[in-house]
Amino acid sequence: MNDRINLSLDQVHDLAFRALNANGMGAEQAEAVARVITQGQRDECHSHGLYRVLGSVRSLRSGKVDGHATPTLSQPAPSIVKVDAHQGFSLLALHSGLPVLVERTRELGVAALVIRNCFHFSALWPEVEAIAEQGLVGLAMTPSHAWVAPAGGNKGVFGTNPLAFAWPRPGGHPFVFDFATSAIARGDIELHARQNKAIPLGWAVDANGEPTTDAQAALAGAMQTFGGHKGSALAAMVELLAGALIGDLTSAESMAFDDGVGAAPFHGELLLAFDPQRFLGDDLALGLQRAEDLFAAITDQGARLPSQRRFEARQRSERDGVWIDRALYQDIQALLA
Amino acid sequence: MNDRINLSLDQVHDLAFRALNANGMGAEQAEAVARVITQGQRDECHSHGLYRVLGSVRSLRSGKVDGHATPTLSQPAPSIVKVDAHQGFSLLALHSGLPVLVERTRELGVAALVIRNCFHFSALWPEVEAIAEQGLVGLAMTPSHAWVAPAGGNKGVFGTNPLAFAWPRPGGHPFVFDFATSAIARGDIELHARQNKAIPLGWAVDANGEPTTDAQAALAGAMQTFGGHKGSALAAMVELLAGALIGDLTSAESMAFDDGVGAAPFHGELLLAFDPQRFLGDDLALGLQRAEDLFAAITDQGARLPSQRRFEARQRSERDGVWIDRALYQDIQALLA
Repeated sequence: MNDRINLSLDQVHDLAFRALNANGMGAEQAEAVARVITQGQRDECHSHGLYRVLGSVRSLRSGKVDGHATPTLSQPAPSIVKVDAHQGFSLLALHSGLPVLVERTRELGVAALVIRNCFHFSALWPEVEAIAEQGLVGLAMTPSHAWVAPAGGNKGVFGTNPLAFAWPRPGGHPFVFDFATSAIARGDIELHARQNKAIPLGWAVDANGEPTTDAQAALAGAMQTFGGHKGSALAAMVELLAGALIGDLTSAESMAFDDGVGAAPFHGELLLAFDPQRFLGDDLALGLQRAEDLFAAITDQGARLPSQRRFEARQRSERDGVWIDRALYQDIQALLA
Repeated sequence: MNDRINLSLDQVHDLAFRALNANGMGAEQAEAVARVITQGQRDECHSHGLYRVLGSVRSLRSGKVDGHATPTLSQPAPSIVKVDAHQGFSLLALHSGLPVLVERTRELGVAALVIRNCFHFSALWPEVEAIAEQGLVGLAMTPSHAWVAPAGGNKGVFGTNPLAFAWPRPGGHPFVFDFATSAIARGDIELHARQNKAIPLGWAVDANGEPTTDAQAALAGAMQTFGGHKGSALAAMVELLAGALIGDLTSAESMAFDDGVGAAPFHGELLLAFDPQRFLGDDLALGLQRAEDLFAAITDQGARLPSQRRFEARQRSERDGVWIDRALYQDIQALLA
């Protein structure tokens, strides 16, 4: 028996939607969540693909997530769009707020989208890519759970606190990056622990604050940021901008709120958008060409742009569909029984 | 003879002002430049203190900088304030634009200040601190000269591309960071080269793209970003936001413009400001307290906040004045002869 099965992107979306909808998520939220899960699977970000159906259902069953919440929108200031997810997942709130963010950005030049009171499990690149599809520049950040120690410390304060950015490129995929400010994703340490494999130095410290290569000791200790004190400073910035500034939970508060249940982290998110047309006016074409020259200077010397592997995977998946572990497929099917 | 002399902060400012003013810089620009040089010396950032008088005068003598330029202000969109420095130094342009940025941010929630056509040599922390003094959150970035290779490459594309951030703290110094996205400042490699000292791996590659510990070979090759591909992605973001988006030169273009003269880099700068009052409304105190809790969670475990050493130096300098190498003092005095 083949241990992998092939699904079209429509089949991925349909499977995710039905599993979520059958487990207490309303059609509107399930549609938004299934869309981002399909995008993750399509780009071969397996940890953000169909695998996330399991975690989403676990979050729903925890009773913390409201799968039927309808986001509400407000505008506390002209350049701030605020969406309250009312304890639903972030994604329907995002889709409610995005068109207003785009409109405000085109009108004002720069605007912010604040998402509050949401459960969050998704990568940020689909969100900044959605901003870039509108010809705007996007920046997004969010806290998570306080697993990561500050530089010079040994106790978790920061989340994995990703930062994502997209720049629109005429006629092609945008320039996109999306990285955790932790040295590595928490899932990677969990994977090493399950396989009894050593982790590299620099990923984590043990419970005594000593550098460790033992994945189990790392999970009992604290993760480290990437890039030493600079990564640590960025992680703090994410807590401040996407937590304190928007009136939502920091990673430490989010972890306390979860209280060991293991649902998706509950907090907020901040997105910024910039309209090159408003910044550049008549020089728009010149500004976009300047960016293309920068990208060429990177790729002409054999270096890769971020997200290139993901875009290659996307092309494959759109042509051939995706391959899913049969065990995962069966686990999701079981949620439909 | 004592090889260091003690100066009050007023004396530092006066010395810098007179040296600049005597060498072709108008009083308005000289006042703005002398102010930031005094701040650098006060905080014991020696490379950004009186030492910069020498480089500024060299820039003036190169004939590229217009020491008498008067910045002009425009508002291409409600949340974008644009100041054209007309080939003067960045600092007078900054002081012209800052009050308007503050006003727009209080009105709209988020706003951007674009500085164009400026020569730039100063640290960004005085600029984001000035934003935080108004109770706003500040973010600033700027390209420089294309000394830094992208991750996976070996040719200079990026500048040292600093990123600075400040969060206002009621009744105290703000939370501030200001770091280069290069692994290290270019000046540090130059210093090692002068002293024939080896540099650590990770700072630079030689002209063949091989990792090197030879500082001379590093200067002939390319510097590396901090934090591998993540730092490289951030450096690209700075080129895009503070170059392409604002219609000003990238680091590669700025280096070509300099054409080996060795003046301060000529390009633009982007500053963003966020008003916590507009984001948080009635929850302002709660949001600011949340930030204080985050800072306490960092310092309570013995880790330091960024800029703490600088603030300690500031306290010393305001009490005792600063100590300057006599040779530097004499070099600056010679500019007044």
